Amino acid sequence: MSAATPHHELILREELVPADRAEIERIVRESKFFRDDEIPVALELVDDRLAKGAASDYKFVVAVRDGKVAGYCCYGLIPVSVHSYDIYWIAVDPALQRTGIGKKLMAAAEDRIRAAGGRRVYVETSSKGQYEATRRFYFSCAYVVAGVLEEFYAPADGKVIFVKVL
Amino acid sequence: MSAATPHHELILREELVPADRAEIERIVRESKFFRDDEIPVALELVDDRLAKGAASDYKFVVAVRDGKVAGYCCYGLIPVSVHSYDIYWIAVDPALQRTGIGKKLMAAAEDRIRAAGGRRVYVETSSKGQYEATRRFYFSCAYVVAGVLEEFYAPADGKVIFVKVL
Repeated sequence: MSAATPHHELILREELVPADRAEIERIVRESKFFRDDEIPVALELVDDRLAKGAASDYKFVVAVRDGKVAGYCCYGLIPVSVHSYDIYWIAVDPALQRTGIGKKLMAAAEDRIRAAGGRRVYVETSSKGQYEATRRFYFSCAYVVAGVLEEFYAPADGKVIFVKVL
Repeated sequence: MSAATPHHELILREELVPADRAEIERIVRESKFFRDDEIPVALELVDDRLAKGAASDYKFVVAVRDGKVAGYCCYGLIPVSVHSYDIYWIAVDPALQRTGIGKKLMAAAEDRIRAAGGRRVYVETSSKGQYEATRRFYFSCAYVVAGVLEEFYAPADGKVIFVKVL
C-alpha cells in the first residue's frame, strides 16, 4: 500500500472479477438477511455478469477495502421498462455495517443509473420485523414506499416496494 | 378429425412444441397489446421452455383450436417466493378474442398453480388507456388491484399489479 493510499480507503469499482464470487457469497450468507434459498439467486446474477461481462443485464458496484470485498450492489434496467431500474441486491460485510458503505453503494448505483438515462429506481424488501433496519436504510437513502404486496414472499411475509425518482 | 372431436373444440396442453414458437410470435405481434421491444422478451420465455422442457421455470398453457394455436399463457413461481406465482404473459389470437379463450387459459393456469401449492397469483399490466380492456379482463377473472407503480414502464405509463388469492 503506497503512501498515497490511506488505510481503509474505500474503492468502488464496476468490474466483477472471478475472485469476487466467493467473497460475495460469504457476505450474503453472513449478513443473515437472506434465506438459504436466496443465496443461489444472488450468485446467479454474479455468474451472469462474470459470463457476459458488460453485456450482462446485471450491473454491479463492488466496494473494496483493504483489498477485500466490503459490500456490493447489483442493479439493472427492468425489462420492458424504458427508464426504471431495480436494485436487485445490496449487501455489506456484517463486520463493516453502519459505516456508510451501504449508502455509498446506493449513491454510486444511482449515479450510474442517472448517467444511463434512468429516471426511477426500485428496491424491494420484506415487511417482516427483522427487516426494519433494511427499511430504515432505504428511507434514509430518500426512497419512499410505492406499494406493499401482502404475503408476497410467504405467509406473514409481504413485499414492500420502495422507489426513488431521480 | 374424428366424429368424437367437435369442430372448434378447444384443447389445452402444457407441452410446448417447436412449431408453437412462430405461432406465439404471430399472436403476440398481432394482438397489438405489446410494444415491439416486448416481443423478444415473450419469445425468450418460449425458448427457455423449449430448451429446458419441464425443468424450465416458465410453465405454459397452450390453447389449440382446429390444429392451430389460439392463445397461450405463461406463468411461473416467482423467485424467492414460496407460494406466489406470476402470469408472465397471456395472449389470444385477435381473430378469436372475446370467445372465452383468455378466461379458460387463466383458469387452467390457476388450477395448475393451486395443484402445485401456489397461494397467490399476480399479473401486471399498463395503466394506459389502451389497456382498459386488459384491466377489465383481469377484474372479470376475479383479480383485484394490489398496487399501482406510477410511470413504471415509461412516462405516463404506470404498472398496475393485480392479485388473486387462491
